[in-house]
Formats: sequence, structure tokens, C-alpha cells
Amino acid sequence: MAIEAARFSPSLAAAAFLARRPPPALFPFSLRRRIPLLHVLAGSSGGDGRVVALSSSELRKRRGLSSSSGAADPASDGDEKLRSLRRLFARPDVAIDAYIVPSQDAHQSEFIAECFMRRAYLTGFTGSAGTAVVTKDKAALWTDGRYFLQAEKELTHEWTLMRSGNHGVPTTSEWLNDVLPSGCRVGIDPFLFSFDAAEELKDSISNKNHELVLVRGMNLVDEIWGDARPEPPKEPTRVHDIKYAGIDVPSKLSFIRSHLTENGCDAVVISMLDEVAWLLNMRGSDVPHSPVFYSYLIVEVSTATLFVDSNKVSEDVLEHLEKAGVKLKPYEAIVSEVERLAEKGAKLWLDSSSVNAAIITAFKSSCDKHMKKKGKAGEKVEKEAYSDEPTGVENGALNAVYNVSPVTLAKSVKNEAEIEGMKNSHLRDAAALAEFWCWLEDEVCKSVPLTEVQVAEKLLEFRKKQDGFIETSFDTISGYGANGAVIHYRPTPEDCSSVGSDNLFLLDSGAQYIDGTTDITRTVHFGEPSPRQKECFTRVLQGHIALDQAVFPERTPGFVLDVLARSSLWKIGLDYRHGTGHGVGAALNVHEGPQSISYRYGNLTALQKGMIVSNEPGYYEDNSFGIRIENLLLIKELNLANSFGGISYLGFERLTFVPIQVHTNISGCHGWHFTLVTYIQLLYWYFFCLNNQ
Amino acid sequence: MAIEAARFSPSLAAAAFLARRPPPALFPFSLRRRIPLLHVLAGSSGGDGRVVALSSSELRKRRGLSSSSGAADPASDGDEKLRSLRRLFARPDVAIDAYIVPSQDAHQSEFIAECFMRRAYLTGFTGSAGTAVVTKDKAALWTDGRYFLQAEKELTHEWTLMRSGNHGVPTTSEWLNDVLPSGCRVGIDPFLFSFDAAEELKDSISNKNHELVLVRGMNLVDEIWGDARPEPPKEPTRVHDIKYAGIDVPSKLSFIRSHLTENGCDAVVISMLDEVAWLLNMRGSDVPHSPVFYSYLIVEVSTATLFVDSNKVSEDVLEHLEKAGVKLKPYEAIVSEVERLAEKGAKLWLDSSSVNAAIITAFKSSCDKHMKKKGKAGEKVEKEAYSDEPTGVENGALNAVYNVSPVTLAKSVKNEAEIEGMKNSHLRDAAALAEFWCWLEDEVCKSVPLTEVQVAEKLLEFRKKQDGFIETSFDTISGYGANGAVIHYRPTPEDCSSVGSDNLFLLDSGAQYIDGTTDITRTVHFGEPSPRQKECFTRVLQGHIALDQAVFPERTPGFVLDVLARSSLWKIGLDYRHGTGHGVGAALNVHEGPQSISYRYGNLTALQKGMIVSNEPGYYEDNSFGIRIENLLLIKELNLANSFGGISYLGFERLTFVPIQVHTNISGCHGWHFTLVTYIQLLYWYFFCLNNQ
Repeated sequence: MAIEAARFSPSLAAAAFLARRPPPALFPFSLRRRIPLLHVLAGSSGGDGRVVALSSSELRKRRGLSSSSGAADPASDGDEKLRSLRRLFARPDVAIDAYIVPSQDAHQSEFIAECFMRRAYLTGFTGSAGTAVVTKDKAALWTDGRYFLQAEKELTHEWTLMRSGNHGVPTTSEWLNDVLPSGCRVGIDPFLFSFDAAEELKDSISNKNHELVLVRGMNLVDEIWGDARPEPPKEPTRVHDIKYAGIDVPSKLSFIRSHLTENGCDAVVISMLDEVAWLLNMRGSDVPHSPVFYSYLIVEVSTATLFVDSNKVSEDVLEHLEKAGVKLKPYEAIVSEVERLAEKGAKLWLDSSSVNAAIITAFKSSCDKHMKKKGKAGEKVEKEAYSDEPTGVENGALNAVYNVSPVTLAKSVKNEAEIEGMKNSHLRDAAALAEFWCWLEDEVCKSVPLTEVQVAEKLLEFRKKQDGFIETSFDTISGYGANGAVIHYRPTPEDCSSVGSDNLFLLDSGAQYIDGTTDITRTVHFGEPSPRQKECFTRVLQGHIALDQAVFPERTPGFVLDVLARSSLWKIGLDYRHGTGHGVGAALNVHEGPQSISYRYGNLTALQKGMIVSNEPGYYEDNSFGIRIENLLLIKELNLANSFGGISYLGFERLTFVPIQVHTNISGCHGWHFTLVTYIQLLYWYFFCLNNQ
Repeated sequence: MAIEAARFSPSLAAAAFLARRPPPALFPFSLRRRIPLLHVLAGSSGGDGRVVALSSSELRKRRGLSSSSGAADPASDGDEKLRSLRRLFARPDVAIDAYIVPSQDAHQSEFIAECFMRRAYLTGFTGSAGTAVVTKDKAALWTDGRYFLQAEKELTHEWTLMRSGNHGVPTTSEWLNDVLPSGCRVGIDPFLFSFDAAEELKDSISNKNHELVLVRGMNLVDEIWGDARPEPPKEPTRVHDIKYAGIDVPSKLSFIRSHLTENGCDAVVISMLDEVAWLLNMRGSDVPHSPVFYSYLIVEVSTATLFVDSNKVSEDVLEHLEKAGVKLKPYEAIVSEVERLAEKGAKLWLDSSSVNAAIITAFKSSCDKHMKKKGKAGEKVEKEAYSDEPTGVENGALNAVYNVSPVTLAKSVKNEAEIEGMKNSHLRDAAALAEFWCWLEDEVCKSVPLTEVQVAEKLLEFRKKQDGFIETSFDTISGYGANGAVIHYRPTPEDCSSVGSDNLFLLDSGAQYIDGTTDITRTVHFGEPSPRQKECFTRVLQGHIALDQAVFPERTPGFVLDVLARSSLWKIGLDYRHGTGHGVGAALNVHEGPQSISYRYGNLTALQKGMIVSNEPGYYEDNSFGIRIENLLLIKELNLANSFGGISYLGFERLTFVPIQVHTNISGCHGWHFTLVTYIQLLYWYFFCLNNQ
């Protein structure tokens, strides 16, 4: 209410909404295109219609680590788990001196199913990021600054907490090189490491002559977890309607196949769950927050095979797949299929940064075996290139092209239907958010005591009322005062603050809708912010606006624009320790690549027309307050008066339609309220017009 | 006069001058520090006092390619030169199929002495950049867009002009691979290629099995040039006074030696002329625009040897060198000395990006020879690392560390005395510029016809009046109207425009003073600029101001800031095809590394406190007008209210003190004149106070 955005217009998003979305009568064409969507959203959602509308906390409850499933009770069985694990080290078919348990599943997923939360089960530490390493006499857990306090609470005394990023703290491999005598055997489950990560690990422990052992056929944590281990998810999949997907599966497959042919490949293995979902116009709900399902996909020049638990595939999904010529095989058959391809002499396109070591090493050994049989030296490995040398092998060249997946860039550049879905879902999300903020301001001004968790739950209620809502797109970050300074704060009912009017309240949340994915952060003050807070908020907003308004030539990588979001803060010696923007999927993962806007200069991916990025500068004052202002932006080509160099110039179109709290002249608690009420009225009037055209 | 700098204060530099340089009585301390310099400048300049005050055009006349020296008369002897060169191909001690003649001297210098202008002599093309390649039946010259027209005029029909950068134009090695039958011998003078460049060339022609032949002992162009070739420069060197250099030679040498010891090296070869001059606190005038002298320097752990024509070294320079323990050897002795070091088993630090192929290959062969003698396999080459393995060789490890010269970064970070010299020389330069602009505005308003060359010569006259002036720091770019759009335009008396009041006038110039180096561009209009020109000028100025005002955390590479200077132009689809900032030497080269501010993202060198960079965004409308606004900036540490992350925040202090022309309310031709007259009065009052304290 009283936060000054000095020298900028009062309500950025609201003004933009009004400017860009004039009354419907003026633009019947653009409105007509939105009608079908808004009529259809309630109820049937295409495919099998099994849209799940569960809050992330409900999902958590349903899938979460309950003590009955054997996890996280440090006092009781922590030691026993370690003892059991170490007993397995000695088995002749294992024979290792150490075992590394990462947080990952087999697909490099950000959100994973409970049955794959092996690190949490083993260590009792339930934070999202961490790596456990167990030797015959030591056990250590690495996690980052977000989780130091939580890990201290949750780990038993048998575990050493390694505070990653702190001065002098070794990496896992440095530690292994330090604590193990030379020449030990370090075991991993090869499904849980990308091929690149496994190679890096192998290299770094080879300094002490340790051998990396790929323990196949079993995961040692699963062995000790036993019957208490939750079942793998069996949620049904659904067809992602063509009206949201925009491009049908046969067209997407032929696009991939043209890439295969261009690169002289016979097949590609797709292992990222969002890439499979995008390519097959399918969605699922195996993990919280992302509408994906556990699977692999192999696309060959004339066939395609989806590796998935067939129980998840209903009749209409099956029909959808058959129409596109996609066959089914069991999820577990991926390795044997890759081996079969190697035997056939197929040349594979493999993204070694995402495909796991189990698959790639199986392919390589199978190639080697086959080559030996044929009297050849071995399979040929290349980076981003391949040779045309004839190998004399019956079924073609026995080698692989290691390159980024052909789906990655295609998925990040949204088509017309995906863009329309993103815009529509953002409009509905904005209505929910505006109603929510209105309600919250009322409650806080009436001094109703509300915790951060209660506030997040109420937001979920407002969102659930919107057509096509499925679930949250990540755990809501609801942080009042000092909690707002914890960048990935997640309140729990047992341990959270009340939201009041004495400090800033940061709320970062998002939703999965049938037609799109949202991600928005607003920071508000229901009383009078301090001059310091006003200054910091203003500078974060200046950075946000500078990026929002940026224009840039085609082929500009995202990192070039990062400075625009920071320079206002830098002017007074402030900064924030996270990137400024990430890619966002269309009714898919809330975080996706390959583009980003970051102060890390390694990502040279150009920002391209049709990509979606977040714009989220912030400032965090430890133990005091946090500020972040986040919208999603669509990259579009601009029609400028000039185009120097004969190239395109690009800019952003805002997808997020929720007002940003700014200083108004209306005194008292209801200044922002006034803006919001007006805004909600406008939004509903707009929806009404859309639905009745 | 009528150019609007919308939303910005009227006279950036003048305002800054007034704000940062208040009347002397208020800041006696800072003023006292400048007095000695300003008293001393006239006359004796330290060392042998041989300060040369010649304009670049005079230098050009004195050293330039006159027809009597045998160059650039396309009609008469162009063919004969090619015939003579090709006859040399067949000599048994040469035996080559092609010869490459670059523009370089042996030191990668930007400005070179006439005797090294072999490419110009051979081809007749006198532009500063170009590479000639001659085969037995073909001759081609590569140059860039700046010189297409000039090259067309100057080349005979025997030469093919290769327009570098144009679509489909091959590189020199692509062309050689195309026109020569497989397995040819391509010759170069190894002194004229850095080792890295020679290796790259070798690699790229090896595709067609061509061999790179280092033609030693003679330069083939010199052979045909014969007696007509100008003598190598014999200008005397001088001591660069410690009051400008700030750090004495023994201290600089021990700094280098500590680096040698840290990296396990016995000696370093310094071949960049400005690095030798900086390290030895010496200056010369062998080439136009840069106060350097042809030489090499080898610094060993306990000795140092300067390779220079001893005629250039007067008694007092000799004494200066002896005091620092620096011995003299002839310039030509560099290769035999490097071979001697190899025989001794010394480990050399070599910057293969600047040290020429003649020196490095001589070292390598000598190592190999010596190793063979000792029964070893060969010299060991590493990048940025070296092994501690004992080699068993008497005098130490026989290998080399290939790394950027230890002088490069040290030279770029200016010390207190260098900064003071830069500030003082910029003040005097500003006085000359202000007087000049005042004069020019008067003349143009009186409709006195003046050509671009006459204007540049008058500017030189004003500069010559300033204490300590030596020469221009590069060829003045004096471009009226459409000529201003040619980024590296150089008017000639025969072919240049008059400066009027109907279009923009761009003037980019700089000077070498005894205590500093300047580089400044101003763009003015003596009448009424068009709305288009106003818009473009305003946006260039906005970019200039955005960079000028930038604050950034330590360890920020220059390319991060480049977008600040471009974003105003990008907003309307405009851009410029050059970097935004380059490093500048202190009384040294006007262009120096390692830092830069550029849209090329490869240079990761962090901007550091004490470095100097230019700030020169521009906009060029072909065949119409050009705009560039350039100041020099000193990077300094800021004392801000915050320092997030516990690190330093850096910003810029303007070194350039000349007003930027902006819109004023005073109508008519004399608006800017009024600003300038006031400004000159202030400057001279300031000098008066300084000199009479």
C-alpha cells in the first residue's frame, strides 16, 4: 500500500492489462479465438478426462513420507538402515567400499515420486536437494544453504552434515578421495546418474585409483527399504488435447525424424519426462506439481516405442498412440531395447546430460560385444559429429551421436495454441490471485490471525475455483518478514509465522491448469514499510521493469539481459543470489530449459520468439525481509520502425496479469484493496464478455 | 546546439566537471598533488628530454609511403613485384608454392614502422588492415568493409580483392585449400605471425595436405624491395619519468620475477612493444601514435636483457637501465638468446598469442636438439600448467609455460601516478578541445569553408599549445555528414568534404602527452538537426550515460555492461557494429587489453579498479550521418551504503572533460559557443589556481 515505485507508473500489470486488452467489442477476432477454451474447461478435459484437482499439500499427504512407510524417524532406525546398507556392501555380487545415494530419479526430474525418495528414506533428511555418501565406517550428507537447519534437525548423530558452498567443505568425490584408502570400489545405481555425471564422478575419484562400480540389477536402498517402500505411482495418463497442444503427434514425430536423418541417426532415446509428455501430447500425474508420467520413449525412423506401465494407459490414450504409430513396451524394457538396437547396428542420438548411465553404458557394452563378434575394435563415440566411414557392419554404423535432445529446443518454442493456453490460464490465475489478495488484505486489516500455511491453503482454494485447475506447479513459498529472506522457504504447519501488517509478505506460487502453467511472485506490505524496504522494493521493481521493457536483437543469449534486472540494486551495493529468469513449460514443468536469464555466463542459448521466461529479480535481507517480483513473459518479434542489420528485434509480452502493489494516495489499509476490487471487476467483466460472445 | 538529450541533464561532462572539481580553496590537498606536474611539463620531460611534437600527418609525410621509396604506384611496377616474388618461390632455399604477406610487424603492433609495411609495398593497397596471398599464378588481397573502395582503387588487375565478411568470401586458408593442388608448400615469415596464428594456419591448410613453411633468414618482400626499402626507425628512446610511471623498474622486475618463481619458470620473453616500454619505464617514437620502440625483453630470475638497436639508447637511458640491472643486446640477437636459454635448460614463460612463431619455434627446436643430445624424447609443451617431473637435465626442466604475459594485467591496472598523469593530460586535452570547438563553431557560423582535413589540422594546432603534447594517439577521424557513418573514416586532402551546418560532424581524436593518453569523440551539429538525428543522438547519449553511471560488483567481465550502452538503441531497432569500450594505456597505446566492453562474449577478463576503458556507443546511418560519443573512464572502487556479499562494488570516474553538445534555449548558432566559452574560462581559471598555489 505504501511502497513507492519512484518514477514509475502506479500499477504496471494492471495498466498493461487495460492497455493490451481493450473492451472486447473492439477486438472480436482475438476474443473469438479464446471462446472455445473457456467453454470447455469445466469437466471434460480431453483424453480420458482424468484431471486431478489436488492441492500440493494433499498430494503430499497422500504420497508423502509417512512414518508408516518407514522414513524419517531419526531416533528409531537410523543406525539400523546404515548397518543394513553396509551389510550389502560385502555381498559378492556387490563388493563395494562406498555407495552414493543422490536425490534423483532415473529421469533427472525436479519433482519425484515417493518410491524414488531413497536419499530421504536412508538419511531421514527430507529436503529436496542432497546427496548421501556411505562408506564402511562413515556416513555424510551434502546439502545447500537452504537446508542446513532442517538437515541438522533431521539427521542422526551417525551422519556428518556437509554444508555445500561453505568455505573448505569438500565435494563428495574430494571427500571420498580423502577418507578412503587408495584403490577402493565406489558404487552407484547407474539409473540415478546421467551418463555425463557418472563420467565426471569416475574421473574425479580415479585420482585416488578408486573404481566407479555401476551396481546393476538392484538399488541397495530399495533392498533395505523392502516391503515398506511405497509402490511406484500408477496414476492414469491422459491425452493432452490438440487444442492445447497445437501440433499433433505425427507432425512432432516427423520433425524429430527429420533431425535423425539429418544427423545420420537411426533412433533417439528420450528420457526427460516432460519431453516424452510434450512429444506424445500426453499428460500424467505420477509426481507432484508436474503433469508427467514415468516413461521412456524411443523414436526410430519408422517406429516409436513408449516404455510405460501399461496400466496407466486407458483405451483412449492407447487409441491416440496407435493413431500416431506409437507402440507400447513395459517401462523396465528400456535397457533391453537399447541393447537390441545396438545389436541391430543402429546409430543412436543420445543426450548424455539427461539420459542415465544405465542406458548409455548398456548401449556401449552391447555395441562393443557386437563389434567384437564382428571382429571390430569397438564402438565409436563422438561429440556433436559423426563420421561417414563405412563400418562394414550389416545394420549400419555402430556408434552414437552425443548431442542435446532434439526435443529440448522444439518444446521451449511455443506454438500458437500453447501460447493461447498460457494466456488464458494466466487470466484465470490472475482472477484467483486478485480475489485472494483482496481477501488477505481484508483479513490482515481486521487482524485475523493467519499463518503462512493457512494463507497458502486459502490461495489454493481460490485457484481451485478456476476452470481447468489441476494442482500447484511447485510448493507455495509463503514467507512473512524474515521468512521471506529464505529464497526457497516452505512453511510447515508446525513451524511457521503469522502474516501481519508489520513487515513484508512474499508469496511465490503457481498452478498447473489444463491449458497452461503459471508462476508468480508478489511482495506486499499491509502496513507502512520502512524507508529501507521502500528503497529495496523500488529498486527490485526498477530491475523488473527494465527487463520487462527490454528490446534485443535476435540471437541474444539470456545472460546479456540479466544486468538490466540487477543494475538498480547494484547502484546501492545490493544484489540477489539467484538467476533472473527460467523457462516455463506450457501445461508442463514450471522450470524448463534450454534458455535462462542468469548472471552465469555459460548458457549461450539465444532467446527466441515463442519462448517463455520468468522475470523475477529480488532482494533478501537476512533475518529481516525478502522481496521478489515475478511475472512470466512471452518472447515475441517486434514490429519496430527500424531493423538495423536486417535482423529481427525481440521483446516481451507479459503473461501475468496481477497488479503489483505500489504507493497510492488512498490512505489506510485499503489502498491496494481498491485497486484489486476494480481489477477483479474488470477481469470478470472480460470473462463474461468472452463466454457470451 | 539543437540536439535534444531528452530527460537528461544538459551538459553531462561540464556538470560533472563542476561537481567533481570544486574551486581549489575547498580541496587544497587534492590540488597540491597536481602542482608539480603542471609546472614541469614545458621543456624538460625527464630522461633525455627528446619529446617529439609532430602531428600524425607530419609523421606520415616523414615516414609515409612516398613513390620514391618504391610503393603504391599500381600502373608501373605492380606486375614486376609479383614476378620478382614468384621467382623467389623457386629458389632451392625457399621452394614454396605460395607466400602469405600480412600487415603485421614482429610484435603484433597496431601502428608499424614504414619498413615493415610489406603488404602495402607489395600490393599497393595502403589501408591499415589486409593480408596478401600470392601463389604461382594468383594474387589475392583480403581486407574488411572499411577498405573495399580504397582497395578497388589501389590494386592492379593482377590482384583479386577478397571482401572479408561478405557472404561466401573464403578465408585465406580456405582459398589456399581451394586454389592449390593437394600437398603444396605455403610459406610465411615466422616473425610476422604469432605462434598461435601460425599453428592455426598450419592446422587449417593441413586439410589439403599443404605444409606450412617458415621461411627463415629473409623476408621475400624485403628481398624484392631491396635498397628502396626504408631504413628501420632509429628514433632515440627516453626515460619515462618516475613521476609519471609511479613504480620504478626494479620493483616492476621483481613483481615479474615473483610470477616466474610461482610458475616454476626461469625466464619470460616480452615481445609486445608497449609491455617492454611499461616494464622498463621507457618510451620511444619508432612508430606513429604509440610512444614505443622496437625491442624485445627477456626477464630472467636474476638478470634482464633488452634487445634493441643500441644507437637508440642515450647515456641517461643506459644509466637508467644499468641501475635496474638491465643489459643490452642487439635487436636481432633475440632468437639466438632464446636458443641459448633452451640449451641452458631454462623453462620459459611464453605468451603464444603475442610472441612470434620465429622465437617460439626456435626455442622448441633448440629444446628438441638439446633433449636428443641428452637422450630425451622431446620438450614438453603445456597450457597454463607444468609438471614437476624431474627431467634429469643439468640446468632445469626443458619445457615452457604457455600463458598470457605477466605484464598484460599489471600494465592495465594503473597506479596512482599513472592515474594522476591521465587526469592531468585529460584536463589539458579538454582545454585544447574546448578552444577548438569554440573556434570551429565560429568559423562554420561565419560560413568559412573548411575541409575535414583542415579541421583536423587546426585541432592539432590547439593541442600542440598544451604542455607535454607529443603527437596524436591515432589518425584523427574527422567525418562530416555521410563520412561520419564510415566508422574508421580518414579524410585525405585530395578527397574530403567541407564541414558545414547542414549535417552532423563526428570528430574522434586523441593525443599522446608526456603524462597520459587521450581518446575522445564528439558529434555536433552547427545548424538544426533532423528529428531522426535528434532521436538517434539522444539514444546514443542515453546509452553513454547508462554505462557512465553503471555500478557493478567486482569480478564482472566487461561484456556484462555492454547491453547498458545499447539498450536505448535496441528499443527502436538500432545498433552499432563495434564494441563499446577498449582499454587505454597511460602515456602508451590508445588501445590495450586485456579488458574490453563488447558484445563479443569471449573476453572474461574482469573489470578491475585502476583500469581505464573507453565508453563509446554510436549509431551510423549509411550514406547519411554518423554519431559517436566517447569519453574515457577510470574504474574505481565505490564506497556505497551496502556491500552485499561482502565484496567490492565498482564504478567509473570520468577522465574526459569536454562538454557534450545538447539542446539549449539560446537560439541561433552560438548556443553551444556560450557553454564552451564559460567552460574554457573555468578550465583556465582552474589551471591558474593550480599553477600559482
